[in-house]
Amino acid sequence: MSGQRIYMDWNATAPLLPEAREALLSALDHIGNPSSVHGEGRATRALIESARRDVAALCGAQPAAVTFTSGATEAANMVLTPDFRMGRTPLRIGKLYVSAIEHPAVREGGRFRREDVSEIPVTSAGVLDCAALKTLLEAHDRQCGLPMVAVMLANNETGIIQPVAEVAAMVRAHGGLLVVDAVQAAGRLPLSIEALGADFLIVSSHKIGGPKGAGALVARGEVMMPAPLIRGGGQEKGHRSGTENAPALAGFAAAARVAADNLDTRTAAIAALRDRLEVQMLECAPDVVIHGRDAPRIANTTFFTLPGLKAETGQIAFDLEGVALSAGSACSSGKVGQSHVLTAMGYDPRQGALRLSIGASTTQAEIDRCAAVFAKVAARRRSTGQAA
Amino acid sequence: MSGQRIYMDWNATAPLLPEAREALLSALDHIGNPSSVHGEGRATRALIESARRDVAALCGAQPAAVTFTSGATEAANMVLTPDFRMGRTPLRIGKLYVSAIEHPAVREGGRFRREDVSEIPVTSAGVLDCAALKTLLEAHDRQCGLPMVAVMLANNETGIIQPVAEVAAMVRAHGGLLVVDAVQAAGRLPLSIEALGADFLIVSSHKIGGPKGAGALVARGEVMMPAPLIRGGGQEKGHRSGTENAPALAGFAAAARVAADNLDTRTAAIAALRDRLEVQMLECAPDVVIHGRDAPRIANTTFFTLPGLKAETGQIAFDLEGVALSAGSACSSGKVGQSHVLTAMGYDPRQGALRLSIGASTTQAEIDRCAAVFAKVAARRRSTGQAA
Repeated sequence: MSGQRIYMDWNATAPLLPEAREALLSALDHIGNPSSVHGEGRATRALIESARRDVAALCGAQPAAVTFTSGATEAANMVLTPDFRMGRTPLRIGKLYVSAIEHPAVREGGRFRREDVSEIPVTSAGVLDCAALKTLLEAHDRQCGLPMVAVMLANNETGIIQPVAEVAAMVRAHGGLLVVDAVQAAGRLPLSIEALGADFLIVSSHKIGGPKGAGALVARGEVMMPAPLIRGGGQEKGHRSGTENAPALAGFAAAARVAADNLDTRTAAIAALRDRLEVQMLECAPDVVIHGRDAPRIANTTFFTLPGLKAETGQIAFDLEGVALSAGSACSSGKVGQSHVLTAMGYDPRQGALRLSIGASTTQAEIDRCAAVFAKVAARRRSTGQAA
Repeated sequence: MSGQRIYMDWNATAPLLPEAREALLSALDHIGNPSSVHGEGRATRALIESARRDVAALCGAQPAAVTFTSGATEAANMVLTPDFRMGRTPLRIGKLYVSAIEHPAVREGGRFRREDVSEIPVTSAGVLDCAALKTLLEAHDRQCGLPMVAVMLANNETGIIQPVAEVAAMVRAHGGLLVVDAVQAAGRLPLSIEALGADFLIVSSHKIGGPKGAGALVARGEVMMPAPLIRGGGQEKGHRSGTENAPALAGFAAAARVAADNLDTRTAAIAALRDRLEVQMLECAPDVVIHGRDAPRIANTTFFTLPGLKAETGQIAFDLEGVALSAGSACSSGKVGQSHVLTAMGYDPRQGALRLSIGASTTQAEIDRCAAVFAKVAARRRSTGQAA
């Protein structure tokens, strides 16, 4: 069966794009350390600065405002800190407000003390509760520092798009900072840090088809920056030390160019495939709950609960049939934990849900085979009387 | 000239080994997220655990005691913190003592407050002043927490080997923790965390011919660990979150296997080349100062000052003649700063020094051509009357 496996777990990690692979490979031949003065070093430096322009373009940002990191988790830990600088002046952030459906990399709160992190609830539709955020911001005590709000643009489990522009206006009105995890939105929604009104965007290379080991913290300007998380040789203008991973960054850049290109056409094709899958799922199991189906979602994600089928059991069943999917997010060490996203939406998280997430190279044949596997798993559930 | 360039800057970054390149390439085909439960995820997980065994073997450590990071700088920032845990019990480190010749990634002191970082002087021979460390440790106030000492095994600029075992005995006697930056020693000296008596080793992939974007913090056991620097999904047993960079780790592992193999033979061959170069340098410029020539050094490094030739000028001259070398360490953004290592050794750092560092693929022909370039640069210095 392994020759015919269907990879439906793009939100966990996307297959490496041929363009990214090629860029990575050719960068492997640059032997210089980008901080070295000699020719080899300067060539590697040029590669990195070119990558910076591509990632900036993906985010509608200035290249100088892009700080490369080892990935999105590091970028989140870097920006989520009470210690900021406005130029050379220290700037204190008093509290962090994170939506209840943020990725663990954000929910953990970075360098904030646990007691300084508050959760913003979401509605049962999986969308941030703006009224609740308003109340939180109005109650914020400015004496302890500015408020920081972290809201993702698209949720990794449900794919539901969050009202970031509305949040931004609110945060702005309260003089706060807005951090937007755009990891799942990049390449799936138009991305412009200005249009979103965010102060910082977080993006990841391997989620858009680039290599692992690269990500970026993208700022709106260059003036306001967090205290460095990783200090040392002073790379990335002192914001992130350590020898830059030029090959990964070159691959990241190639993926960013692909992600920014033909967004509408690509998204429409993916949406058509995803909708085709959902129609088939609903036909053969009318009781399937597709979370967020009526909400604005990114085009590639289907997050569903089959009554009577535990997520963990379902995941193994799909895997045995050759379909790779996830039970929520793929974090920690292979454990299938309870989904904090489902909990936040008010669902009973014990049964859990399964996530099918596809991408540009997913074919209609794969969709139809996946639907057949779904039918099989759903039927087996009935025949074994698992349905309660 | 570019077709015949001679790369003599291995301490800044080593060329990618064919073995590491191959391992990286084949790992690029693993599409799974190592935290995913499906087959793709499990295959990637297996790759990472295999890499962990190889890196552990290089360091004479247990695989379970290896935490992968994005590089040595991150590993240093992770371990250099006042907040430790002994199992579940918090353990407080009161002060950090760093040698004056540590890499900036260590000298910056990680998460310690600047006032809690003290410098241990080195002698004019470039070796840690053990008597001074003894005095510092005797004066250490245990009330504020345990002492932590960071001493590198081999210096990146001079190549001088530090008396780590002696330091370890002293640190042990004072109930402290010893962190050893083994970045330049790995693959050049036998490495055993037990034999060294270190509590933590820091190693880097790209300095031993592996890909960039990987490093490790290697502990003596599993019980005592620093508070995580990067939190989120809980990867690496919670010590370092973020999707593991499996391809880079596979390449790192391949490089670690090569580094651990045939160490004596390889080192002897490199030493012979380095000695051949130094003999030629001394012949044509008897006034050249080779720093640490009488000290125990790793076999691949020559750090020298040519009286009358500023390091910055020299570096450009060598580069124009096709030889890539460094003026000290390759940090921050292409600037040639004053060497803190020379300063610590009591030399006037204004003139600076140049570093030639070679590796296993360096040829005798390259050594001889490099010596010829050296002769040319040295002669030009005399003819332009630069020699003071």
